[in-house]
Amino acid sequence: MAKAQRKKASKKELILRRAASMFREKGFSATSMRDLAEMVGIEAASLYNHIRSKNEILEAICFDVANIFNTYIESLEASEEKSIAKIEKLLRFHIRQMIENYEEVYVSDREWKHLEDPYLSNFQAQRRNYRKKFATIINEGITRGEIRNIDAPTAVLIILHAVSGIESWHRSKARISAAELEDNMVMIMIDGLRKHS
Amino acid sequence: MAKAQRKKASKKELILRRAASMFREKGFSATSMRDLAEMVGIEAASLYNHIRSKNEILEAICFDVANIFNTYIESLEASEEKSIAKIEKLLRFHIRQMIENYEEVYVSDREWKHLEDPYLSNFQAQRRNYRKKFATIINEGITRGEIRNIDAPTAVLIILHAVSGIESWHRSKARISAAELEDNMVMIMIDGLRKHS
Repeated sequence: MAKAQRKKASKKELILRRAASMFREKGFSATSMRDLAEMVGIEAASLYNHIRSKNEILEAICFDVANIFNTYIESLEASEEKSIAKIEKLLRFHIRQMIENYEEVYVSDREWKHLEDPYLSNFQAQRRNYRKKFATIINEGITRGEIRNIDAPTAVLIILHAVSGIESWHRSKARISAAELEDNMVMIMIDGLRKHS
Repeated sequence: MAKAQRKKASKKELILRRAASMFREKGFSATSMRDLAEMVGIEAASLYNHIRSKNEILEAICFDVANIFNTYIESLEASEEKSIAKIEKLLRFHIRQMIENYEEVYVSDREWKHLEDPYLSNFQAQRRNYRKKFATIINEGITRGEIRNIDAPTAVLIILHAVSGIESWHRSKARISAAELEDNMVMIMIDGLRKHS
Protein backbone atom coordinates (compact mmCIF):
# COMPACT_ATOMS: atom_id res chain seq x y z
CA MET A 1 0.00 0.00 0.00
CA ALA A 2 1.15 3.52 -0.76
CA LYS A 3 1.69 5.74 2.25
CA ALA A 4 -1.46 7.81 1.65
CA GLN A 5 -3.59 4.68 1.41
CA ARG A 6 -2.09 3.27 4.61
CA LYS A 7 -2.82 6.50 6.38
CA LYS A 8 -6.42 6.42 5.17
CA ALA A 9 -6.85 2.80 6.28
CA SER A 10 -5.54 3.52 9.74
CA LYS A 11 -7.81 6.56 10.02
CA LYS A 12 -10.76 4.33 9.16
CA GLU A 13 -9.70 1.85 11.83
CA LEU A 14 -9.53 4.66 14.36
CA ILE A 15 -13.03 5.78 13.38
CA LEU A 16 -14.37 2.24 13.83
CA ARG A 17 -12.73 1.88 17.23
CA ARG A 18 -14.04 5.19 18.51
CA ALA A 19 -17.47 4.46 17.07
CA ALA A 20 -17.62 1.08 18.81
CA SER A 21 -16.79 2.79 22.06
CA MET A 22 -19.49 5.45 21.59
CA PHE A 23 -22.12 2.98 20.38
CA ARG A 24 -21.50 0.91 23.50
CA GLU A 25 -21.71 3.83 25.86
CA LYS A 26 -24.56 5.84 24.37
CA GLY A 27 -26.17 3.32 22.05
CA PHE A 28 -26.19 3.46 18.23
CA SER A 29 -29.35 5.59 18.06
CA ALA A 30 -28.10 8.27 20.41
CA THR A 31 -24.71 8.68 18.67
CA SER A 32 -24.52 11.26 15.89
CA MET A 33 -21.93 11.55 13.12
CA ARG A 34 -21.10 14.94 14.64
CA ASP A 35 -20.35 13.34 18.06
CA LEU A 36 -18.20 10.83 16.33
CA ALA A 37 -16.24 13.38 14.29
CA GLU A 38 -15.53 15.27 17.51
CA MET A 39 -14.35 12.08 19.21
CA VAL A 40 -11.99 11.27 16.31
CA GLY A 41 -10.81 14.86 16.16
CA ILE A 42 -11.75 15.71 12.56
CA GLU A 43 -14.40 17.83 10.85
CA ALA A 44 -17.78 16.17 10.37
CA ALA A 45 -17.44 16.79 6.63
CA SER A 46 -14.13 14.94 6.36
CA LEU A 47 -15.57 11.98 8.23
CA TYR A 48 -17.47 11.27 5.03
CA ASN A 49 -14.18 10.81 3.17
CA HIS A 50 -13.73 7.65 5.19
CA ILE A 51 -17.21 6.37 5.82
CA ARG A 52 -20.54 6.90 4.09
CA SER A 53 -22.94 6.57 7.01
CA LYS A 54 -23.41 5.58 10.61
CA ASN A 55 -24.94 2.35 9.39
CA GLU A 56 -21.84 1.50 7.38
CA ILE A 57 -19.85 1.74 10.61
CA LEU A 58 -22.24 -0.57 12.42
CA GLU A 59 -22.05 -3.05 9.54
CA ALA A 60 -18.25 -3.04 9.66
CA ILE A 61 -18.24 -3.67 13.41
CA CYS A 62 -20.86 -6.44 13.35
CA PHE A 63 -19.43 -8.32 10.40
CA ASP A 64 -15.86 -8.08 11.70
CA VAL A 65 -16.98 -9.68 14.95
CA ALA A 66 -19.03 -12.31 13.11
CA ASN A 67 -15.93 -13.23 11.09
CA ILE A 68 -13.81 -13.62 14.21
CA PHE A 69 -16.28 -16.03 15.81
CA ASN A 70 -17.06 -17.92 12.61
CA THR A 71 -13.38 -18.49 11.92
CA TYR A 72 -12.86 -19.80 15.42
CA ILE A 73 -15.80 -22.19 15.51
CA GLU A 74 -14.85 -23.54 12.07
CA SER A 75 -11.34 -24.32 13.31
CA LEU A 76 -12.91 -26.24 16.20
CA GLU A 77 -15.23 -28.16 13.91
CA ALA A 78 -12.22 -29.30 11.94
CA SER A 79 -10.28 -30.45 14.99
CA GLU A 80 -10.10 -33.97 16.42
CA GLU A 81 -10.42 -33.03 20.07
CA LYS A 82 -13.04 -34.21 22.51
CA SER A 83 -16.32 -32.32 22.34
CA ILE A 84 -16.10 -31.16 25.95
CA ALA A 85 -12.62 -29.74 25.26
CA LYS A 86 -14.00 -27.92 22.22
CA ILE A 87 -16.78 -26.38 24.30
CA GLU A 88 -14.31 -25.30 26.95
CA LYS A 89 -12.10 -23.70 24.31
CA LEU A 90 -15.07 -21.96 22.74
CA LEU A 91 -16.23 -20.65 26.12
CA ARG A 92 -12.72 -19.34 26.89
CA PHE A 93 -12.59 -17.73 23.45
CA HIS A 94 -15.92 -15.96 24.05
CA ILE A 95 -14.79 -14.73 27.46
CA ARG A 96 -11.50 -13.37 26.12
CA GLN A 97 -13.20 -11.63 23.22
CA MET A 98 -15.63 -10.07 25.68
CA ILE A 99 -12.65 -8.81 27.70
CA GLU A 100 -10.04 -7.93 25.08
CA ASN A 101 -12.32 -6.87 22.22
CA TYR A 102 -15.06 -5.59 24.50
CA GLU A 103 -16.48 -2.56 22.69
CA GLU A 104 -16.83 -4.31 19.33
CA VAL A 105 -18.24 -7.55 20.73
CA TYR A 106 -20.69 -5.67 22.94
CA VAL A 107 -21.92 -3.55 20.04
CA SER A 108 -22.32 -6.52 17.70
CA ASP A 109 -24.22 -8.36 20.46
CA ARG A 110 -26.56 -5.55 21.53
CA GLU A 111 -26.86 -3.06 18.71
CA TRP A 112 -27.14 -5.29 15.63
CA LYS A 113 -30.91 -4.69 15.59
CA HIS A 114 -30.15 -1.31 14.02
CA LEU A 115 -28.60 -2.92 10.94
CA GLU A 116 -30.64 -2.48 7.77
CA ASP A 117 -31.44 -5.07 5.17
CA PRO A 118 -29.81 -6.92 3.45
CA TYR A 119 -27.25 -6.76 6.29
CA LEU A 120 -29.83 -7.28 9.02
CA SER A 121 -31.22 -10.55 7.62
CA ASN A 122 -27.77 -11.76 6.75
CA PHE A 123 -26.49 -11.07 10.27
CA GLN A 124 -29.49 -12.77 11.87
CA ALA A 125 -28.95 -15.83 9.70
CA GLN A 126 -25.29 -15.94 10.74
CA ARG A 127 -26.29 -15.72 14.41
CA ARG A 128 -28.74 -18.60 14.04
CA ASN A 129 -26.15 -20.59 12.16
CA TYR A 130 -23.49 -19.96 14.78
CA ARG A 131 -25.78 -21.11 17.58
CA LYS A 132 -26.62 -24.23 15.59
CA LYS A 133 -22.94 -25.08 15.16
CA PHE A 134 -22.39 -24.52 18.87
CA ALA A 135 -25.33 -26.80 19.72
CA THR A 136 -24.06 -29.41 17.27
CA ILE A 137 -20.74 -29.67 19.11
CA ILE A 138 -22.66 -30.15 22.38
CA ASN A 139 -24.89 -32.79 20.82
CA GLU A 140 -21.82 -34.65 19.54
CA GLY A 141 -20.51 -34.64 23.09
CA ILE A 142 -23.79 -36.10 24.33
CA THR A 143 -23.68 -38.83 21.70
CA ARG A 144 -20.09 -39.66 22.64
CA GLY A 145 -21.00 -39.82 26.35
CA GLU A 146 -18.80 -36.88 27.32
CA ILE A 147 -21.65 -34.49 28.05
CA ARG A 148 -24.81 -35.12 30.08
CA ASN A 149 -28.10 -35.59 28.37
CA ILE A 150 -29.16 -31.95 28.33
CA ASP A 151 -30.96 -29.76 25.82
CA ALA A 152 -28.14 -28.34 23.71
CA PRO A 153 -29.87 -25.06 22.68
CA THR A 154 -30.51 -24.32 26.37
CA ALA A 155 -26.84 -24.90 27.16
CA VAL A 156 -25.90 -22.51 24.34
CA LEU A 157 -28.35 -19.94 25.69
CA ILE A 158 -26.87 -20.20 29.19
CA ILE A 159 -23.28 -19.92 27.99
CA LEU A 160 -23.81 -17.02 25.59
CA HIS A 161 -25.86 -14.98 28.03
CA ALA A 162 -23.56 -15.67 30.94
CA VAL A 163 -20.66 -14.43 28.80
CA SER A 164 -22.53 -11.30 27.82
CA GLY A 165 -22.92 -10.69 31.58
CA ILE A 166 -19.20 -9.87 31.61
CA GLU A 167 -20.52 -6.41 30.85
CA SER A 168 -21.34 -6.07 34.54
CA TRP A 169 -17.84 -7.32 35.44
CA HIS A 170 -16.44 -4.45 33.34
CA ARG A 171 -18.60 -2.01 35.30
CA SER A 172 -17.91 -3.37 38.77
CA LYS A 173 -15.38 -1.69 41.02
CA ALA A 174 -14.24 -4.57 43.22
CA ARG A 175 -13.65 -7.13 40.55
CA ILE A 176 -11.57 -10.28 40.32
CA SER A 177 -8.90 -10.55 37.60
CA ALA A 178 -9.82 -11.49 34.04
CA ALA A 179 -8.03 -14.83 34.45
CA GLU A 180 -9.98 -15.65 37.62
CA LEU A 181 -13.23 -14.66 35.96
CA GLU A 182 -12.45 -16.96 33.04
CA ASP A 183 -11.52 -19.91 35.27
CA ASN A 184 -14.60 -19.47 37.45
CA MET A 185 -16.92 -19.36 34.47
CA VAL A 186 -15.30 -22.47 33.02
CA MET A 187 -15.44 -24.28 36.35
CA ILE A 188 -19.15 -23.63 36.83
CA MET A 189 -20.42 -24.07 33.30
CA ILE A 190 -18.15 -26.75 31.91
CA ASP A 191 -18.56 -28.87 35.02
CA GLY A 192 -22.31 -28.39 34.76
CA LEU A 193 -22.14 -29.95 31.29
CA ARG A 194 -19.61 -32.72 31.88
CA LYS A 195 -20.86 -36.23 32.42
CA HIS A 196 -19.40 -37.66 35.61
CA SER A 197 -18.78 -41.34 35.18
CA MET B 1 -63.13 -0.70 48.89
CA ALA B 2 -66.09 1.03 47.33
CA LYS B 3 -67.05 -0.14 43.86
CA ALA B 4 -65.75 3.02 42.13
CA GLN B 5 -62.38 2.66 43.88
CA ARG B 6 -62.10 -0.99 42.93
CA LYS B 7 -62.84 -0.13 39.32
CA LYS B 8 -60.18 2.56 39.35
CA ALA B 9 -57.62 0.19 40.89
CA SER B 10 -58.24 -2.48 38.28
CA LYS B 11 -57.98 0.09 35.49
CA LYS B 12 -54.61 1.12 36.87
CA GLU B 13 -53.51 -2.53 36.92
CA LEU B 14 -54.56 -2.86 33.30
CA ILE B 15 -52.55 0.24 32.39
CA LEU B 16 -49.47 -1.16 34.13
CA ARG B 17 -49.79 -4.52 32.37
CA ARG B 18 -50.20 -2.96 28.94
CA ALA B 19 -47.39 -0.54 29.63
CA ALA B 20 -45.03 -3.37 30.63
CA SER B 21 -45.83 -5.11 27.38
CA MET B 22 -45.18 -1.97 25.29
CA PHE B 23 -42.02 -1.03 27.18
CA ARG B 24 -40.69 -4.51 26.54
CA GLU B 25 -41.48 -4.50 22.87
CA LYS B 26 -40.62 -0.93 21.88
CA GLY B 27 -38.53 0.19 24.83
CA PHE B 28 -39.49 2.84 27.41
CA SER B 29 -38.10 5.74 25.36
CA ALA B 30 -40.00 4.87 22.20
CA THR B 31 -43.38 4.43 23.94
CA SER B 32 -45.57 7.53 24.23
CA MET B 33 -48.49 8.16 26.60
CA ARG B 34 -50.62 8.43 23.45
CA ASP B 35 -49.56 4.90 22.30
CA LEU B 36 -50.36 3.62 25.73
CA ALA B 37 -53.81 5.26 25.92
CA GLU B 38 -54.62 3.69 22.55
CA MET B 39 -53.48 0.29 23.77
CA VAL B 40 -55.63 0.55 26.91
CA GLY B 41 -58.55 1.88 24.89
CA ILE B 42 -59.07 5.22 26.63
CA GLU B 43 -58.47 8.87 25.78
CA ALA B 44 -54.95 10.15 26.44
CA ALA B 45 -56.48 12.81 28.73
CA SER B 46 -58.25 10.26 30.94
CA LEU B 47 -55.03 8.23 31.27
CA TYR B 48 -53.87 11.05 33.53
CA ASN B 49 -56.73 10.30 35.94
CA HIS B 50 -54.94 7.08 36.73
CA ILE B 51 -51.28 7.88 36.33
CA ARG B 52 -49.26 11.07 36.40
CA SER B 53 -46.47 10.24 33.98
CA LYS B 54 -44.70 7.55 31.99
CA ASN B 55 -42.01 7.53 34.66
CA GLU B 56 -44.54 6.79 37.38
CA ILE B 57 -45.52 3.68 35.42
CA LEU B 58 -41.91 2.55 35.13
CA GLU B 59 -41.42 3.11 38.86
CA ALA B 60 -44.49 1.01 39.67
CA ILE B 61 -43.25 -1.84 37.46
CA CYS B 62 -39.66 -1.82 38.73
CA PHE B 63 -40.52 -1.56 42.42
CA ASP B 64 -43.25 -4.23 42.18
CA VAL B 65 -40.70 -6.63 40.71
CA ALA B 66 -38.07 -5.64 43.27
CA ASN B 67 -40.57 -6.41 46.05
CA ILE B 68 -41.34 -9.84 44.62
CA PHE B 69 -37.66 -10.84 44.53
CA ASN B 70 -36.78 -9.23 47.87
CA THR B 71 -39.63 -11.03 49.61
CA TYR B 72 -38.53 -14.34 48.15
CA ILE B 73 -34.84 -14.05 48.99
CA GLU B 74 -35.70 -12.95 52.55
CA SER B 75 -37.85 -16.04 53.03
CA LEU B 76 -34.85 -18.14 51.92
CA GLU B 77 -32.48 -16.35 54.25
CA ALA B 78 -34.80 -17.21 57.14
CA SER B 79 -35.03 -20.90 56.22
CA GLU B 80 -32.97 -23.76 57.63
CA GLU B 81 -32.35 -25.55 54.36
CA LYS B 82 -29.01 -26.39 52.82
CA SER B 83 -27.40 -23.56 50.88
CA ILE B 84 -27.33 -25.50 47.63
CA ALA B 85 -31.07 -26.17 47.98
CA LYS B 86 -31.65 -22.45 48.55
CA ILE B 87 -29.72 -21.57 45.41
CA GLU B 88 -31.67 -24.13 43.40
CA LYS B 89 -34.96 -22.71 44.70
CA LEU B 90 -33.85 -19.18 43.93
CA LEU B 91 -32.80 -20.16 40.42
CA ARG B 92 -36.15 -21.87 39.81
CA PHE B 93 -37.95 -18.81 41.18
CA HIS B 94 -36.05 -16.52 38.79
CA ILE B 95 -36.81 -18.79 35.83
CA ARG B 96 -40.54 -18.93 36.64
CA GLN B 97 -40.76 -15.19 37.10
CA MET B 98 -39.04 -14.75 33.75
CA ILE B 99 -41.65 -17.04 32.19
CA GLU B 100 -44.87 -16.22 34.05
CA ASN B 101 -44.27 -12.56 34.81
CA TYR B 102 -42.17 -11.95 31.70
CA GLU B 103 -43.07 -8.42 30.60
CA GLU B 104 -42.67 -6.89 34.06
CA VAL B 105 -39.46 -8.75 34.91
CA TYR B 106 -37.93 -7.95 31.52
CA VAL B 107 -38.77 -4.25 31.85
CA SER B 108 -37.42 -4.00 35.39
CA ASP B 109 -34.24 -5.77 34.24
CA ARG B 110 -33.58 -3.80 31.04
CA GLU B 111 -35.35 -0.46 31.28
CA TRP B 112 -34.66 0.61 34.87
CA LYS B 113 -31.93 2.95 33.60
CA HIS B 114 -34.73 5.34 32.62
CA LEU B 115 -35.85 5.76 36.23
CA GLU B 116 -35.20 9.20 37.68
CA ASP B 117 -33.78 10.03 41.07
CA PRO B 118 -34.53 9.36 43.90
CA TYR B 119 -36.00 6.17 42.40
CA LEU B 120 -32.97 5.46 40.22
CA SER B 121 -30.42 5.46 43.07
CA ASN B 122 -32.80 3.58 45.30
CA PHE B 123 -33.37 0.89 42.69
CA GLN B 124 -29.63 0.54 41.98
CA ALA B 125 -28.95 0.15 45.69
CA GLN B 126 -31.61 -2.57 45.89
CA ARG B 127 -30.04 -4.39 42.94
CA ARG B 128 -26.62 -4.31 44.54
CA ASN B 129 -28.09 -5.44 47.82
CA TYR B 130 -29.98 -8.30 46.18
CA ARG B 131 -26.82 -9.55 44.46
CA LYS B 132 -24.95 -9.36 47.74
CA LYS B 133 -27.58 -11.47 49.49
CA PHE B 134 -27.45 -13.97 46.64
CA ALA B 135 -23.64 -14.15 46.89
CA THR B 136 -23.86 -14.53 50.66
CA ILE B 137 -25.97 -17.66 50.32
CA ILE B 138 -23.39 -19.07 47.90
CA ASN B 139 -20.54 -18.19 50.25
CA GLU B 140 -22.33 -19.92 53.12
CA GLY B 141 -22.57 -23.00 50.92
CA ILE B 142 -18.83 -22.84 50.26
CA THR B 143 -18.08 -22.54 53.98
CA ARG B 144 -20.32 -25.52 54.71
CA GLY B 145 -18.61 -27.60 52.02
CA GLU B 146 -21.75 -27.92 49.86
CA ILE B 147 -20.53 -25.65 47.08
CA ARG B 148 -17.17 -25.65 45.34
CA ASN B 149 -14.65 -22.98 46.06
CA ILE B 150 -15.73 -20.52 43.39
CA ASP B 151 -16.03 -16.76 43.26
CA ALA B 152 -19.59 -16.10 44.46
CA PRO B 153 -20.18 -12.83 42.57
CA THR B 154 -19.18 -14.58 39.32
CA ALA B 155 -21.67 -17.36 40.02
CA VAL B 156 -24.37 -14.74 40.62
CA LEU B 157 -23.43 -13.01 37.38
CA ILE B 158 -23.66 -16.29 35.44
CA ILE B 159 -27.02 -17.25 36.95
CA LEU B 160 -28.70 -13.88 36.56
CA HIS B 161 -27.55 -13.37 32.99
CA ALA B 162 -28.37 -16.92 31.94
CA VAL B 163 -31.88 -16.39 33.31
CA SER B 164 -32.28 -13.12 31.45
CA GLY B 165 -31.38 -15.12 28.32
CA ILE B 166 -34.84 -16.71 28.62
CA GLU B 167 -35.80 -13.72 26.51
CA SER B 168 -34.42 -15.60 23.50
CA TRP B 169 -36.38 -18.71 24.55
CA HIS B 170 -39.55 -16.56 24.41
CA ARG B 171 -38.64 -15.47 20.89
CA SER B 172 -37.63 -18.88 19.52
CA LYS B 173 -40.03 -20.89 17.41
CA ALA B 174 -38.92 -24.45 18.06
CA ARG B 175 -38.65 -24.29 21.81
CA ILE B 176 -38.73 -26.85 24.60
CA SER B 177 -41.40 -26.58 27.32
CA ALA B 178 -41.00 -24.18 30.23
CA ALA B 179 -40.57 -27.13 32.62
CA GLU B 180 -37.81 -28.64 30.48
CA LEU B 181 -36.09 -25.27 30.21
CA GLU B 182 -36.19 -24.92 33.99
CA ASP B 183 -34.83 -28.42 34.61
CA ASN B 184 -32.05 -28.03 32.07
CA MET B 185 -30.92 -24.72 33.53
CA VAL B 186 -30.93 -26.21 37.02
CA MET B 187 -29.07 -29.31 35.86
CA ILE B 188 -26.29 -27.32 34.20
CA MET B 189 -25.86 -24.48 36.67
CA ILE B 190 -26.59 -26.15 40.01
CA ASP B 191 -24.39 -29.09 39.15
CA GLY B 192 -21.70 -26.68 38.11
CA LEU B 193 -21.81 -25.25 41.64
CA ARG B 194 -22.25 -28.41 43.68
CA LYS B 195 -19.22 -29.91 45.38
CA HIS B 196 -18.86 -33.56 44.45
CA SER B 197 -17.55 -35.49 47.38
